[in-house]
Amino acid sequence: MKFRVKLIPVRMERASAILSQEDAQELGLLVGDRIKLIFGRKSIVADVQIATGMIERGEIGISKNITEYLEIEEGGEVEAYPVAKPPSVEYIRKKMDGHKLKKEEIYSIVSDIVNDALNEIELSAFVLSNYFHGMDMDEIEWLTRAMIETGETVTFEKGTIVDKHSIGGVPGNKISLLIVPIVAATGLYIPKTASRAITSASGTADTMEVLANVCLSVDEIKEITERVGGVIAWGGATNIAPADDKIIRVEYPLSIDPHSQLLASVMAKKGAIGAQFVVIDIPVGRGAKVPDIDKGRELANDFVTLGRRLGLNVTCAITYGSQPIGKAVGPALEAKEALEALEKGKAPRSLIEKALGIAGTLLEMAGVATDGVEYAKRVLESGKALEKFREIVEAQGGEPNVSSENVPIGDKTYDVVSPIDGAVSRVDNKRVVKVARAAGAPKDKGAGIVLHKKGGQHVKKGDKLFTIYAEKEWKLEQAIELAMREPPVKVSGMILEKYPSYRYY
Amino acid sequence: MKFRVKLIPVRMERASAILSQEDAQELGLLVGDRIKLIFGRKSIVADVQIATGMIERGEIGISKNITEYLEIEEGGEVEAYPVAKPPSVEYIRKKMDGHKLKKEEIYSIVSDIVNDALNEIELSAFVLSNYFHGMDMDEIEWLTRAMIETGETVTFEKGTIVDKHSIGGVPGNKISLLIVPIVAATGLYIPKTASRAITSASGTADTMEVLANVCLSVDEIKEITERVGGVIAWGGATNIAPADDKIIRVEYPLSIDPHSQLLASVMAKKGAIGAQFVVIDIPVGRGAKVPDIDKGRELANDFVTLGRRLGLNVTCAITYGSQPIGKAVGPALEAKEALEALEKGKAPRSLIEKALGIAGTLLEMAGVATDGVEYAKRVLESGKALEKFREIVEAQGGEPNVSSENVPIGDKTYDVVSPIDGAVSRVDNKRVVKVARAAGAPKDKGAGIVLHKKGGQHVKKGDKLFTIYAEKEWKLEQAIELAMREPPVKVSGMILEKYPSYRYY
Repeated sequence: MKFRVKLIPVRMERASAILSQEDAQELGLLVGDRIKLIFGRKSIVADVQIATGMIERGEIGISKNITEYLEIEEGGEVEAYPVAKPPSVEYIRKKMDGHKLKKEEIYSIVSDIVNDALNEIELSAFVLSNYFHGMDMDEIEWLTRAMIETGETVTFEKGTIVDKHSIGGVPGNKISLLIVPIVAATGLYIPKTASRAITSASGTADTMEVLANVCLSVDEIKEITERVGGVIAWGGATNIAPADDKIIRVEYPLSIDPHSQLLASVMAKKGAIGAQFVVIDIPVGRGAKVPDIDKGRELANDFVTLGRRLGLNVTCAITYGSQPIGKAVGPALEAKEALEALEKGKAPRSLIEKALGIAGTLLEMAGVATDGVEYAKRVLESGKALEKFREIVEAQGGEPNVSSENVPIGDKTYDVVSPIDGAVSRVDNKRVVKVARAAGAPKDKGAGIVLHKKGGQHVKKGDKLFTIYAEKEWKLEQAIELAMREPPVKVSGMILEKYPSYRYY
Repeated sequence: MKFRVKLIPVRMERASAILSQEDAQELGLLVGDRIKLIFGRKSIVADVQIATGMIERGEIGISKNITEYLEIEEGGEVEAYPVAKPPSVEYIRKKMDGHKLKKEEIYSIVSDIVNDALNEIELSAFVLSNYFHGMDMDEIEWLTRAMIETGETVTFEKGTIVDKHSIGGVPGNKISLLIVPIVAATGLYIPKTASRAITSASGTADTMEVLANVCLSVDEIKEITERVGGVIAWGGATNIAPADDKIIRVEYPLSIDPHSQLLASVMAKKGAIGAQFVVIDIPVGRGAKVPDIDKGRELANDFVTLGRRLGLNVTCAITYGSQPIGKAVGPALEAKEALEALEKGKAPRSLIEKALGIAGTLLEMAGVATDGVEYAKRVLESGKALEKFREIVEAQGGEPNVSSENVPIGDKTYDVVSPIDGAVSRVDNKRVVKVARAAGAPKDKGAGIVLHKKGGQHVKKGDKLFTIYAEKEWKLEQAIELAMREPPVKVSGMILEKYPSYRYY
């Protein structure tokens, strides 16, 4: 059938085509079906949407991205006909019914995810099936390989390639800004791709972006790594394992992260970048992704097994994750804290100890040192890590003489003090993140929280517990309000039953 | 935050608001989050969409249905702020993890479904969770009651209200056009609401629409039922159990129909219409929804149990569903076949026997007859059923002297003949539907298939197997091509290994 193009004046990521109810019926199409649009020698498959008005019979509403792709103007005539569901939908159905998928079936699903050939409902069904039924190690391996092969990959001709990855869930985890330069300073290559915050207050890419450009191509990542030894880039700017981003978009509204997908997602990124030795940081504890050390060990075992199948040497670090790492949460505040650690070799113990522990593990795995932590500590204290970090920042287009002194942070601040004498009984990861996000993080780089007291510390009435930073007054207000309603730092006396609440001065 | 309205020139069913990437980040919003739009004293909650271009910072793209609702013009300023996920999302998560839901949790989910407060991914997660984990009878009862209570209901002051429902899956099932007038002719009330085809060749509403108006309000359904005893209306034109339509829209792309939802969907419609005695038709067999009689019995037992909990007296008829009912498939062809049965009391045995069996069961349940089938047969043969049907058609705005002679059917036809001597080894339900739909059904009322031979019948080479009817030449071609590729009627000799294929003359 031929349709007159009506331009929908917007550019969207997915291709969809809006039909009148009558034409949809004529073609036997329902919402979520697929239609192929053909103009000249170009064609594109779009999701069917059905209008309840303003699209006449014979008209088809398509957005700017499609008209541009097809090189057609408003009012032009496009040929359109229904296309069948891709076969991968059948494979998703098979997984829905709890059956094990074959290698080529998983490849077909992943390739259709990457090509936007699955609609949201079908993609949700895939993710939920994995959540409900899980995948065995064969399937996870195939999923990982399919995710690697449907995206860009990097091959280094020389050097030892190491990498680290945190599965997330604990705020303030700016350790990569220490680990990458420490490791790179020893002559290893560490081409770290990191993510931006989705629900957290700052992803490593957001934090690094305060100091340098993180939108690097795969070629740039390779070139900088070979030149200065390391890089901290935003994975989303590359086309590494592109299926992952699309899967995450469905996981987010349901707050799920199926085991199989978590494993595949992490290992695909490491595999694609050509890593030989990898440390996976698995924070466990209250308010972290993994609730306890036993579950952490299970996950660790799966990472190691999957790594072995893929030819990657993996060590997992199960880490303390019941409260934030260090004191700063939010892009600029975290960048500042990381720089302080590099400059002075001292910073909150939780940050230094964790960073050195993971860096040390990488050094041992790669055969650089027998006592990796001690070696890493020397690199940090000697100033070589700072020097390397500045090289990396410069290579990524940042200010080479960057210092913690001149990291701009939000100028709207508010101190929250303890209403009683007592001790900090809990710093709640999720609440810290919520307040930091309410204050503007990660979008407003200078926004976030600095904790002055952490779990177990004694406080006197009137002592500062934490400071909220914001760039905008209205966001500061919003964060203060939230911090009053859901206090991120809980102070208790010995009499727990009274549940004191904060007063704000 | 305030936004300048950019009109998206289309009317869509769901409310969505398109933001620029920057503004979405500013507000911490991702695709699928919710935003509240406020203008003057009106407000509406919309799904967040994120544009990749053509929506500037400070702009918000909203479609005509929203601008009209808010009474705002293009360029006007709307206030918008993020709203939290509704609590029902938490309950869906609970079901995802396999836990039993409480009554108020199910009510909350259903009410949010009806109010479009759940996005597609969340709704998919609910449907899939029910598919994976099922629901127990408490949950199914609450789901049914919630579906009834979130929609319109009918209360009859007098009379005995009966109803029937087929769970679907077998083509040509036009029995309601016989059952409703037979039952109504005996003085019972049968306010039948029916559905349109979603994936079939004709729903009962599509078939009835050939002869009369089926878009009746609940008030009209009640009025006509009280006046002439029966009605065959399209449920979708009423607001009866509106959650059902929205659930079906998600089930369709995944081709699933979870047990719990099937039960609730059918019984909610029967409950809402005030039925006291109900027969559920459960076709079983190859190519039907229910594969065998054992599974049919399980389902039947659940229908009866659920009915008892809701105060409805339910009998299930497990029926033969391995091939189409009667010979005609497609709206007008089926209406014509039903009229022939009413006029002459004779028609294909499968149609008459099934219709009389179910009508008879209703008559026995309601205490009208002890031998219901015999009683129903007399009503049919006496011409009273035809007379009643004409009254119903007239009450629904149709031609009162309607006859099978003047039902308009497609004038483009094509006969498919047997290439060999042999016997019909299979009439494939799904293929029959596909060919009928390719020919234009249900949209083109006159399109469809008439079977000349059914399973087990002997055929000679050159005998007509079936005729394809269409209203449009291109659709006829399309149907012929499909029928060649996937023959709906299979003829075999005794030597099965040769797999003969059709030749078309």
